[in-house]
Amino acid sequence: MIVQKYKDMLSGKSVIRQLSEFATARGAEIGYENVFDYSLGNPSVPVPQEFTDRMIHMLATQEPSVLHGYSPSLGITSVREAIAASLNERFGLPYKAEHIFMASGAAGALAHAFRLVTEPGDEILTFAPFFPEYNPYVNLTGAVLKIVPPNTADFQINFEAFEAMVNEKTMAVLINTPNNPSGIVYSKETIERLADTLRKKSAEFGHDIFIISDEPYREIVFEGVEAPCVSAFYDNTIMCYSFSKSLSLPGERIGYVAINPACKEAATMVNMCGQISRGIGHNCPPSIIQLAVAQVLDKTADLSVYEKNMNLIYDCLMELGFTCVKPGGTFYIFPKALEEDAKVFCEKALKYDLILVPADSFGAPGYFRMAYCIDTEKVVRSLDALRKFVETEYPDQVKKTEEK
Amino acid sequence: MIVQKYKDMLSGKSVIRQLSEFATARGAEIGYENVFDYSLGNPSVPVPQEFTDRMIHMLATQEPSVLHGYSPSLGITSVREAIAASLNERFGLPYKAEHIFMASGAAGALAHAFRLVTEPGDEILTFAPFFPEYNPYVNLTGAVLKIVPPNTADFQINFEAFEAMVNEKTMAVLINTPNNPSGIVYSKETIERLADTLRKKSAEFGHDIFIISDEPYREIVFEGVEAPCVSAFYDNTIMCYSFSKSLSLPGERIGYVAINPACKEAATMVNMCGQISRGIGHNCPPSIIQLAVAQVLDKTADLSVYEKNMNLIYDCLMELGFTCVKPGGTFYIFPKALEEDAKVFCEKALKYDLILVPADSFGAPGYFRMAYCIDTEKVVRSLDALRKFVETEYPDQVKKTEEK
Repeated sequence: MIVQKYKDMLSGKSVIRQLSEFATARGAEIGYENVFDYSLGNPSVPVPQEFTDRMIHMLATQEPSVLHGYSPSLGITSVREAIAASLNERFGLPYKAEHIFMASGAAGALAHAFRLVTEPGDEILTFAPFFPEYNPYVNLTGAVLKIVPPNTADFQINFEAFEAMVNEKTMAVLINTPNNPSGIVYSKETIERLADTLRKKSAEFGHDIFIISDEPYREIVFEGVEAPCVSAFYDNTIMCYSFSKSLSLPGERIGYVAINPACKEAATMVNMCGQISRGIGHNCPPSIIQLAVAQVLDKTADLSVYEKNMNLIYDCLMELGFTCVKPGGTFYIFPKALEEDAKVFCEKALKYDLILVPADSFGAPGYFRMAYCIDTEKVVRSLDALRKFVETEYPDQVKKTEEK
Repeated sequence: MIVQKYKDMLSGKSVIRQLSEFATARGAEIGYENVFDYSLGNPSVPVPQEFTDRMIHMLATQEPSVLHGYSPSLGITSVREAIAASLNERFGLPYKAEHIFMASGAAGALAHAFRLVTEPGDEILTFAPFFPEYNPYVNLTGAVLKIVPPNTADFQINFEAFEAMVNEKTMAVLINTPNNPSGIVYSKETIERLADTLRKKSAEFGHDIFIISDEPYREIVFEGVEAPCVSAFYDNTIMCYSFSKSLSLPGERIGYVAINPACKEAATMVNMCGQISRGIGHNCPPSIIQLAVAQVLDKTADLSVYEKNMNLIYDCLMELGFTCVKPGGTFYIFPKALEEDAKVFCEKALKYDLILVPADSFGAPGYFRMAYCIDTEKVVRSLDALRKFVETEYPDQVKKTEEK
């Protein structure tokens, strides 16, 4: 018999997916260039040319049975060494190959991290606003994801709520900085306070509480903002990284788990990842992609377009009187809707071909997300639509802003 | 706290892995060309040149953000269509794209198949000799793998034992034909009888019992042997395929699940695979590899070397008086050891630099496996070592054979 649990999941379609499908259908009507589709976090800039060159060079010159051969289950050793060296150079931490586990993208990395430190019934805490896929990622392991309500003042951590929620079942805290959907980068103070709290709570409950640090946006940080390396602040940190955004390679499924060398059993945990893989059918990232990425670790795609887009949108939102914390990175911005129900707000925006995502499923009702990984030219045109939308649907808002 | 279950698994090192490590170490001493390493099932022939050409062509000409973009969670539609068409042409079955789910290799495909039809506590039956990784693959889902003892006469199915073991908890039967480790191809009669039995047992227990058909060796079938398509015989068949062996691409992690269109909810099951993926951190195979493989579906690597190697080894084994069922495909052969304890037998073979794998973990004690995906020239040299090994260690065997 087929398993009902997975069948039941089919009826719950994600809002992002629905909106993205709407955008595609509307695009077929009026031309996709006229649909201001801010629904999907799909990188819009090309991979660095060096990556393509290295791929072609390997294909043209290397022995195919070596190039396409099995990767060891923890990843290709030379690739793990290169990643460790690159992390050390950047963050001044003593990673070695034995602390790195190659994973098929962030989803693959997180699947291992959750299973390393939780058993069914254990709890993982995360902070709103959060990436809604964390729900199935965690809950289908048998552990339980609990959401700490947001600190809407600046989208740093709501420590009061957090401290009230940590309990003896809490085995890990899942953070994502720079953050999807808020675009916020956790400050040094936030991470220090989080680390202090967890050290205190670990002692109180008599077991280690891990930080699982989901860092796919680590390289997309804007001018004047510092993104502290979480692992430098807390020994029991499991870093989950993906090259999807930094190299614009989301389809090639490459990332890694890096266990903080200061963790008591760091190398053992990496070996355990190899065992976890056997149970979840995980395979190492494709050999050729591992080998190519290892050659461009110091490169990124040209990420400057995201900052340019953010500034254009943020200035327009300010001009229109929106409440919005300025993003420090990523390609997301997270303003407050102009009416209480963000779903109604985003529904109205569709009339202006603006595809905005209401943030109820991100744990922050009343807010909406814009993923601005689109061409700047389109961003500029979309802002005219945004102005028209606000002026037409929310005339009071315009009056209020003019009065200021 | 780290999870003990996975930590405990680290102490149990696989025999294959140990032997392979021994071979590498011995190779460092005497030159790897002098170690007759039959331990690993790692394809030894190159990928077809067309694959490499298509990869280079795509890299050189296509828009990188499209080429490396996200794959839909069920796989790239055009790739699923091409695979369905190719299956139909070969097997005369009415597959459509909606019946195909792209998976990262056979391990990824099986991880989805098991979760589609079993819940914790359910049983999956498989037939010895079997691929030992099936144990963690199944048991870590919470379901239980039960092993039907072998029919050592011809390594087809031991139906008597099988019928006694099927019970109300049996949700699926996992088969692997052509078979690792025996090299045997299930006959039409075997598959028909299996299908009949399962229809009868499904009716008896009031629920569908699925066949999960693991088919990575489907294209490696020797002269005069017919490998029937399992799905053609039984509606509730979940085919799990990998291109690792047929295209010699084991490191690139590409395969698929094909749900028999005759299955009651075939398309729903494919959609359920997408939900299962969210819980196990599965990602579609890399986009570029999906696109390249779809262009060479009618190609294979030059697989003829495996049959050549098989014949050389089989003839030598016969000459030396071994008991051995002649393989119909794969790159494995599975003779009976010359003493009761195959571990002792294989231990003695090491003195002759012959790396043979005792089959206790394959569910057939007293037998051993040779993976002959190595150069033919090396096979020839290894047979001299094999002769010397048998003559020296088992002089009675030689006498017995001469008497015949």
